[in-house]
Amino acid sequence: MKSFLYPKINSHSFTWVRPEGRIPEKVHEWIQPIDSAADPEKSKEAEIVVVGVPLSRSSISASGASEFPDAFRRAWKGFTTYNLDEDVDLAEMTALDVGDVPMHVTDIPRCHENIIEASTALHSHFVNSKVCAIGGDHSITAMMVKGLKKAKPEERIGILQFDTHFDLRDMSDNGPSNGTPMRNLIESGVLNGTDMYNIGLHGFFNTKELKQYADEKGVNYITLGRARKKGIEETVLQCLEELSAKVDTIYLTVDMDVLDIAYAPGVPASTPGGMTTAELLDGVLAAGRHPKVKAMDIVCLDPLKDTAVQPTVKLGTHVFLTFVTGVMLR
Amino acid sequence: MKSFLYPKINSHSFTWVRPEGRIPEKVHEWIQPIDSAADPEKSKEAEIVVVGVPLSRSSISASGASEFPDAFRRAWKGFTTYNLDEDVDLAEMTALDVGDVPMHVTDIPRCHENIIEASTALHSHFVNSKVCAIGGDHSITAMMVKGLKKAKPEERIGILQFDTHFDLRDMSDNGPSNGTPMRNLIESGVLNGTDMYNIGLHGFFNTKELKQYADEKGVNYITLGRARKKGIEETVLQCLEELSAKVDTIYLTVDMDVLDIAYAPGVPASTPGGMTTAELLDGVLAAGRHPKVKAMDIVCLDPLKDTAVQPTVKLGTHVFLTFVTGVMLR
Amino acid sequence: MKSFLYPKINSHSFTWVRPEGRIPEKVHEWIQPIDSAADPEKSKEAEIVVVGVPLSRSSISASGASEFPDAFRRAWKGFTTYNLDEDVDLAEMTALDVGDVPMHVTDIPRCHENIIEASTALHSHFVNSKVCAIGGDHSITAMMVKGLKKAKPEERIGILQFDTHFDLRDMSDNGPSNGTPMRNLIESGVLNGTDMYNIGLHGFFNTKELKQYADEKGVNYITLGRARKKGIEETVLQCLEELSAKVDTIYLTVDMDVLDIAYAPGVPASTPGGMTTAELLDGVLAAGRHPKVKAMDIVCLDPLKDTAVQPTVKLGTHVFLTFVTGVMLR
Amino acid sequence: MKSFLYPKINSHSFTWVRPEGRIPEKVHEWIQPIDSAADPEKSKEAEIVVVGVPLSRSSISASGASEFPDAFRRAWKGFTTYNLDEDVDLAEMTALDVGDVPMHVTDIPRCHENIIEASTALHSHFVNSKVCAIGGDHSITAMMVKGLKKAKPEERIGILQFDTHFDLRDMSDNGPSNGTPMRNLIESGVLNGTDMYNIGLHGFFNTKELKQYADEKGVNYITLGRARKKGIEETVLQCLEELSAKVDTIYLTVDMDVLDIAYAPGVPASTPGGMTTAELLDGVLAAGRHPKVKAMDIVCLDPLKDTAVQPTVKLGTHVFLTFVTGVMLR
Amino acid sequence: MKSFLYPKINSHSFTWVRPEGRIPEKVHEWIQPIDSAADPEKSKEAEIVVVGVPLSRSSISASGASEFPDAFRRAWKGFTTYNLDEDVDLAEMTALDVGDVPMHVTDIPRCHENIIEASTALHSHFVNSKVCAIGGDHSITAMMVKGLKKAKPEERIGILQFDTHFDLRDMSDNGPSNGTPMRNLIESGVLNGTDMYNIGLHGFFNTKELKQYADEKGVNYITLGRARKKGIEETVLQCLEELSAKVDTIYLTVDMDVLDIAYAPGVPASTPGGMTTAELLDGVLAAGRHPKVKAMDIVCLDPLKDTAVQPTVKLGTHVFLTFVTGVMLR
Amino acid sequence: MKSFLYPKINSHSFTWVRPEGRIPEKVHEWIQPIDSAADPEKSKEAEIVVVGVPLSRSSISASGASEFPDAFRRAWKGFTTYNLDEDVDLAEMTALDVGDVPMHVTDIPRCHENIIEASTALHSHFVNSKVCAIGGDHSITAMMVKGLKKAKPEERIGILQFDTHFDLRDMSDNGPSNGTPMRNLIESGVLNGTDMYNIGLHGFFNTKELKQYADEKGVNYITLGRARKKGIEETVLQCLEELSAKVDTIYLTVDMDVLDIAYAPGVPASTPGGMTTAELLDGVLAAGRHPKVKAMDIVCLDPLKDTAVQPTVKLGTHVFLTFVTGVMLR
Repeated sequence: MKSFLYPKINSHSFTWVRPEGRIPEKVHEWIQPIDSAADPEKSKEAEIVVVGVPLSRSSISASGASEFPDAFRRAWKGFTTYNLDEDVDLAEMTALDVGDVPMHVTDIPRCHENIIEASTALHSHFVNSKVCAIGGDHSITAMMVKGLKKAKPEERIGILQFDTHFDLRDMSDNGPSNGTPMRNLIESGVLNGTDMYNIGLHGFFNTKELKQYADEKGVNYITLGRARKKGIEETVLQCLEELSAKVDTIYLTVDMDVLDIAYAPGVPASTPGGMTTAELLDGVLAAGRHPKVKAMDIVCLDPLKDTAVQPTVKLGTHVFLTFVTGVMLR
Repeated sequence: MKSFLYPKINSHSFTWVRPEGRIPEKVHEWIQPIDSAADPEKSKEAEIVVVGVPLSRSSISASGASEFPDAFRRAWKGFTTYNLDEDVDLAEMTALDVGDVPMHVTDIPRCHENIIEASTALHSHFVNSKVCAIGGDHSITAMMVKGLKKAKPEERIGILQFDTHFDLRDMSDNGPSNGTPMRNLIESGVLNGTDMYNIGLHGFFNTKELKQYADEKGVNYITLGRARKKGIEETVLQCLEELSAKVDTIYLTVDMDVLDIAYAPGVPASTPGGMTTAELLDGVLAAGRHPKVKAMDIVCLDPLKDTAVQPTVKLGTHVFLTFVTGVMLR
Repeated sequence: MKSFLYPKINSHSFTWVRPEGRIPEKVHEWIQPIDSAADPEKSKEAEIVVVGVPLSRSSISASGASEFPDAFRRAWKGFTTYNLDEDVDLAEMTALDVGDVPMHVTDIPRCHENIIEASTALHSHFVNSKVCAIGGDHSITAMMVKGLKKAKPEERIGILQFDTHFDLRDMSDNGPSNGTPMRNLIESGVLNGTDMYNIGLHGFFNTKELKQYADEKGVNYITLGRARKKGIEETVLQCLEELSAKVDTIYLTVDMDVLDIAYAPGVPASTPGGMTTAELLDGVLAAGRHPKVKAMDIVCLDPLKDTAVQPTVKLGTHVFLTFVTGVMLR
Repeated sequence: MKSFLYPKINSHSFTWVRPEGRIPEKVHEWIQPIDSAADPEKSKEAEIVVVGVPLSRSSISASGASEFPDAFRRAWKGFTTYNLDEDVDLAEMTALDVGDVPMHVTDIPRCHENIIEASTALHSHFVNSKVCAIGGDHSITAMMVKGLKKAKPEERIGILQFDTHFDLRDMSDNGPSNGTPMRNLIESGVLNGTDMYNIGLHGFFNTKELKQYADEKGVNYITLGRARKKGIEETVLQCLEELSAKVDTIYLTVDMDVLDIAYAPGVPASTPGGMTTAELLDGVLAAGRHPKVKAMDIVCLDPLKDTAVQPTVKLGTHVFLTFVTGVMLR
Repeated sequence: MKSFLYPKINSHSFTWVRPEGRIPEKVHEWIQPIDSAADPEKSKEAEIVVVGVPLSRSSISASGASEFPDAFRRAWKGFTTYNLDEDVDLAEMTALDVGDVPMHVTDIPRCHENIIEASTALHSHFVNSKVCAIGGDHSITAMMVKGLKKAKPEERIGILQFDTHFDLRDMSDNGPSNGTPMRNLIESGVLNGTDMYNIGLHGFFNTKELKQYADEKGVNYITLGRARKKGIEETVLQCLEELSAKVDTIYLTVDMDVLDIAYAPGVPASTPGGMTTAELLDGVLAAGRHPKVKAMDIVCLDPLKDTAVQPTVKLGTHVFLTFVTGVMLR
Repeated sequence: MKSFLYPKINSHSFTWVRPEGRIPEKVHEWIQPIDSAADPEKSKEAEIVVVGVPLSRSSISASGASEFPDAFRRAWKGFTTYNLDEDVDLAEMTALDVGDVPMHVTDIPRCHENIIEASTALHSHFVNSKVCAIGGDHSITAMMVKGLKKAKPEERIGILQFDTHFDLRDMSDNGPSNGTPMRNLIESGVLNGTDMYNIGLHGFFNTKELKQYADEKGVNYITLGRARKKGIEETVLQCLEELSAKVDTIYLTVDMDVLDIAYAPGVPASTPGGMTTAELLDGVLAAGRHPKVKAMDIVCLDPLKDTAVQPTVKLGTHVFLTFVTGVMLR
């Protein structure tokens, strides 16, 4: 696929062409691969745009999160487009898969630059679409948001983050790794710390120093314990209310390590005491419904570590579909 | 074992003969294999009857659920007969294991016919017993219920179903597979759709078309989300109340895929966002207590996919024992 | 893909379209999916034809061998077309993938009938091609050979079989299961027992009764122990020499359970004491080189049981490529 | 390490020496190995003392729980000392690791004697420290408590136990195995049954006979079902209140099999229907905060059975850190 | 089963009773459980006697080898009695399974004593049978041989050992563990070092000190490298020739760790560079054929560590059947 | 450890300090960590120097080979220093572990530069030692050799490579990844293609283009098939003879993917049809014995993919010890 959008969106070919007149029932029948023959103008109307970001060599620990975009697409055929809980059919929306951002094996800065450029291209073309980036490790979030900022420099951007970690590590130690995206965005001036809301921190997985940095920069965070007492959905709604009063656009980033390790064996950084599946899905649905949430990503899911029946890959896919359901319910 | 009951109940030999006078402590000491030397009349008094239904070649996806009856029996020695939560000892009831329904390797219709005949034979002989069928895939439910109907044609039968799916697929596509049992029963006139209650539907695992069919036939369903808000136990009680006002006999079918995949790695069709173990056990206990529930099955558990310490096989066994506890508490 | 060949060859879409002028380096770039737009006449010139036969519900034990055709195709991208041992490039030959034979969920006889019809269609159209069937369980071999016989009724067919078992079980027990294909062919008059050569029998995996049946029918077999002493390649050459003196066409069937279980963890029926990888590849190469070997299959490989790095799926793919290398060296 | 404390504490060398002036951030930087060169008097001030008790050949079922002390220490580097939920930094407390109690391969009574002696030595030297024993199987609890009693004979000791089992089996059957520690303590006169509180019993994992023995001896137990209704934290607080009115010192024993098997795949005796991670951590935190809880252990976690990303080893480590957090919050 | 032989042979019940007149085809149909109702005199004629020795708490490393006797018996149904390589049917011999030697959970010396007593009882009763002990860890060999010596004190006994290790560790370190059986026999005067032949030593798995002890005591050993050059079968034959010139009875002990770890993932002590399956089976067959080999054991196979399709359990079973084949060919 | 050698050799602390006067029996007792307090001059006499090179983010596929240095060191305690095959004790040589080359998370060129500098430092200091680099992926070989060249610019260097691949990919595609080291060395002028000998190529794992490049540059390669016919040891000896006639120093690189995947499940790039363990060990021993082989590495072993009993980690360790044995036998 030679995309008309942007040459950096690499060639990713897809297996399916929708037969004439058939209504899609499964997700792989619904989401259409973009094609060089497509009409650029018409493509702009896509409500959902999926882009794979297969980068995990920037991860502190050895990671196979680069394999998630492929695993994610293969999982589609296990899901219908119809959401029974909300009685809505996602197939009534249009969704495009623009393939993967191309990566380089040994030049990580170039990979990061490619992501920024792809994000800029996507947000410039798909002005009103919801762009969903499928990671990859968490370093990609800084790049996707930088690209969004380049495409829409006039907009003030805020972040809603589900995470067990602050991801505010000092980049002078090891560069823009998966431990740094939030600090990266603050230090590069793209975002204010006060426009960041992190839900899910808990336990012994952040240093005191990072907490102090977060406080200093005004980063908002609600520990999982407090979120649970208030209700995850209620917590998310309140964060979104505060955020939307301040910013034009909200970017949702779901670090799958926010989950309890019992629910996410394929996320090596997930921990005991994290969120349950039901809690995360509730939170993501609430986020998806908010009109200012215009982009999202799912990161740090390593399919190579998942167990045999692939519970984590399925859960990652469910997170995406739940977000889209929220969009549809707006 | 050549059963006096019915030649189709195949020879299944058991390892244990209860030593004289010893009170059983473990489940494998309590449940007695039926024996050709047994007194037919006395056997009728058994309160619980277990039958294995090792068929899964009728499953849409490749399945090893046929191995569950054996795995289930091997798991018995890990459970005592004493239920500490309720302070009751199941060993005060009599329980018989009549072995497995015989299956054919390449003739699936014959397998299904065998199940119907076995069910008829069991329900004709064990008129007041609770017959517990251990699957196997979900196609067996239609056959067990058809057999029950043959044995007791005058009774109106209702179904309480724990499931992530409607199981209402069109049989004209692929025959009576594991996706079809509920439609099979409706279309064959054995049951009314309005006498079916499904608890546990959620997410993206049913097409809109199936939902429309369900609505058309008046099938009752309570999504997991709604059941959670009301309380699983409360939901089950209300379903049973409605059902028991309409029917004479209630058949309980537990499709293990109703569980969240984190709790049931040995159920390939289980999904993220399903029931927790505690929720299912609560629901099954409530069902077991209802006087009109006279038969049940446990299906779609594939021991070949379970993880090393066999959490799913143990959970399937726990579901059975919890049902029996309910029966004892009636 | 609606095949022009035969409506029973089902729609199987492929991910790759070869860019103009690029020489294929990897196997997935080389083997072309057949397309309804293709020129039927030109397609006949394909030297290699691959067909998937995803049937394993006819297997005595629960099996996921039905998943091998897909796993096989996904494995292609891990192999180049260039064989360094022989310094030949398979890409100089033309190869087509005609997709999978369509299967029914609950009607096994119909599945078997579909395979026969597909085989007839393929052998009628691709008269000079080597047709390679990717199973599936061993029951498919009888069907593929029956189809070949229908397409070329005038030809006398012989079989070269790599197997730990005779596969001569009595069909009156359980129908045409994976334990019966050789007897099926003898009893249906398609082949003479004396035109069958089985290499690899060993150990305690066949009953005496089957050995007596084999002797009675004149089936030729060389135990692994004897083949090893003579040399696998030498053994294969001698079998082919004997066979080719008697028959017009030789069908090669590779039951992957001929391998030692250390080499084939994804073949549940493989055993301790079986062939090594090197031995099997030597044997298959020798078979591939013989001008009368015109069709082959690979069966009983269950990817669901393979270990994490998929040694058995890779080995199955290597067997196919080694056969094709033999064809190229003719 | 030749400990000055007691020759039975064996040589266990550690990899880390804290660099001058650096504040520890990770647990492995914080907990200091005791050294023969250390000042005995100063060491007494340690607030937390860790001792490994790698014995599991006394387990009824084959167990690798003897490997947990090593796995536990290796897991330290995955945890920071800073607890974000409570905003406390454990590094402000002093913690010592005194190595492992030496074990004998074939003389289990000697192993048990070694544990008693080590416990006496530790409690005599570290009079005000919290001694944390890392098992090993549950038989070690009886020995640790016996040693504590020897060190402080004047004190009345009570036990708070998280467990799926009573652990009150008759020692005359198979000696002081992992099924017997509570009975061992009652029968040896070290404790009164009435000073024992067990939280977490449920399901079909105890015989009626053991329940009767518990009743006879006045052992207090709260089933998981009842604890859940009241709230785990509330239940623990009430038990501690009752216990502290009766005894001088409370010993906390955490049998990891109290957890639901979905959360603890590395605890072969864990069961469906057990505690969630969140529940156990809540209970342990409450216990850690009580001023009379002066010693604790974590038992029956078998790292050899854990799944690839080691959820159970991480959870066991989290339990320890949560207990220490409680101590810090006193 | 209350054995008439010896009260220490514990109750082990079996699933199968041979139907009248049916010729056994599978191993589980052939080997008969001994029964208290059996005729003692007639039982003496059994040519093969199997006894389980489920002890592995005497193992240096945590081991589940105690589970092998059960796994071994469950594996029987995967093997026929007919050996195709040699064209002999084991079912023509009589074989008895006398159950397991009873074990104690916390008293290892008593376990060892039980094994000695059981061995004495078996060799006294089954004077001409081949007694096959299924371990368990290697410490059992010393006990089985001591019992044999007690039963037949006048006979000089020699040992043929397949092993990666000398198993000559000093018992004063850790008692009669699995590292000591050969030294145990030498030091207790039951055997001369010169009557021991060890085949399979290699690599870096024995200390120099043990080699010096072996030399001092005249223990014979042939490294795997040298055995390979000569041929395994030839090596075994020469050892047997030397041994039989010196002793009356030869005891064969197969430590499964002699295998290369690629062939034996279920033997944690197996190593890279060990024997192949084919080599071990050749050696065992040769040993089985020698008229002076009257007892054997198979040790150190831990089914809990085996991979999913159980290659090691199957291999252990194959070793036993191959030995019996040798006996039949005498 | 602050090394006096070179600040780039990072701090790696070790667990063991050899007790006074004790002769080491296990490998972890023998290999000494270098210490800042050590005497630099004395250290130069070390015969064996181990350095960890934990880089695998330069790998084409997601790889955890960066974890091998740690896994390798942990495996030491499972090996004795005494080689029974050759009757030599490695403990008579001196061996140092200088820790790991420090790596950066997101700057791969800097990682490569660090390796070059470390190699230069090591070869400058340990002039006569054998430097053994433990990878990491194969990209490290180019860096280790470049560093060696910098330290000894006057010497002509040759390479003996065990590999399934040429590793001659074009660096202009993806930089100096694990597919390129040999081409890297040729193109940077460090080595002549004619001074490279590759043993082990086979199958379908190299493109024709790479073969043509190899031929063009005069790279010597012996396919596994040809090496087997001649004998691996004989092949290695002949390569060494040819090489030593041309060069001053030979560098041995062992890419573990040369092994058959049945022997090396922890090497994702290993393939069916590769070397057996015995063959590789034979080859490595022969290489170790040659006086001109002065450095070596072991690469591409990913412990995260290894199976439970860690056969591949053990095999990698065995390869190292076998090389050292060769050195000792010089």
